[in-house]
Amino acid sequence: MTDALTIWTYDWVPQGPRGHVRDIRLRWACEEAGLPYRIASIRFEDRTTPDHLARQPFAQVPALQDGEIRLFESGACLLHLAEKSESLMPRAAKGRAEVLEWVIAGLNSIEMVTVPWWFIGLSGPPENPLEGWLASRLGRLDAVLAGRPYLAADRFTVADLLMADILRVRKLRAVLDPYPALTAYADRILARSAFLKAQQDQLDHFAAADAARAKS
Amino acid sequence: MTDALTIWTYDWVPQGPRGHVRDIRLRWACEEAGLPYRIASIRFEDRTTPDHLARQPFAQVPALQDGEIRLFESGACLLHLAEKSESLMPRAAKGRAEVLEWVIAGLNSIEMVTVPWWFIGLSGPPENPLEGWLASRLGRLDAVLAGRPYLAADRFTVADLLMADILRVRKLRAVLDPYPALTAYADRILARSAFLKAQQDQLDHFAAADAARAKS
Repeated sequence: MTDALTIWTYDWVPQGPRGHVRDIRLRWACEEAGLPYRIASIRFEDRTTPDHLARQPFAQVPALQDGEIRLFESGACLLHLAEKSESLMPRAAKGRAEVLEWVIAGLNSIEMVTVPWWFIGLSGPPENPLEGWLASRLGRLDAVLAGRPYLAADRFTVADLLMADILRVRKLRAVLDPYPALTAYADRILARSAFLKAQQDQLDHFAAADAARAKS
Repeated sequence: MTDALTIWTYDWVPQGPRGHVRDIRLRWACEEAGLPYRIASIRFEDRTTPDHLARQPFAQVPALQDGEIRLFESGACLLHLAEKSESLMPRAAKGRAEVLEWVIAGLNSIEMVTVPWWFIGLSGPPENPLEGWLASRLGRLDAVLAGRPYLAADRFTVADLLMADILRVRKLRAVLDPYPALTAYADRILARSAFLKAQQDQLDHFAAADAARAKS
């Protein structure tokens, strides 16, 4: 009997990030693949304790436990999960390479711009110095998606899961109108039932923590 | 007989990025692993042609050709090369997982901050809005490296190759003094002969292009 996978997240977070904490990427992947998993929580207030830093050295979530294997970084966890199910990544070398390059492109060509752009927007300087770079990267991605429905291997893969999660950040989604192919793509990927379940499960998880904290 | 790997880079770049174009990561990995490779060039001026966008949709380099397999994104190329040689990544599941998480951490936790920080520094606003975030990430990484000589699997791996290349960016290296473990780590990894050869080869490649352009 195989132990279920364990996805680590916080027990509670403020309202803002709910539905967007990155354990959702792992929940979504497990739902797509039918992989059994359980959720384990660390107290939000304990995120900089030595115990948690041993699990996630940047004091973040998620982390994944798979038997003896422990992993942090949602992108690494997704590639690890993808090895477990063809529903997340094809087995043939060419398809695997396409998934790998597009997962890394999501993390290092798109999110490397979108997350700092979003972060700078929080403190709101009159002009965001990453605006032009963001437009350039989104334009290139839009051109790719104008030519095909999925990023890799002519089918849904974990690369689409990751990219759609990157694109759905609210402030980013609000500026995507100039990129019709990209917008249609994100909407289509985010309509998948596995995503909707993962999102609701995360919202429920944090809501349950509110209830527990109110009692104590 | 196996075809040699092909690493795609530009034929020429301005002086500034020489020694830092990301084909260096792939050259370095091949040198570490003793993998035969050849360099193929696309004209710098042709980087937004349909031919090159089919190879690298964000109009960048490097790209890697390995028989039928084509990959873009240096991080993806490194993980692909790592499968070819235990000198880049251990074969056992635990060591592989550690390499994977630290490659992704390099790309998505460190470089996601360092590259936009550097980019914003080019246009020089009086205060860089990413300063605090940069310090926080570098501090966490310094704490990890204070406890061990390598990121993953208790030995040099492709995760160190990537992280050291991220940290050696000149403007970043100039602010690393508050992080002694991180500085010592980068200096140690960057003293490897495979890196020094890859760096010199890249400098020679672009210098040869100067000579060719001067003649024509």
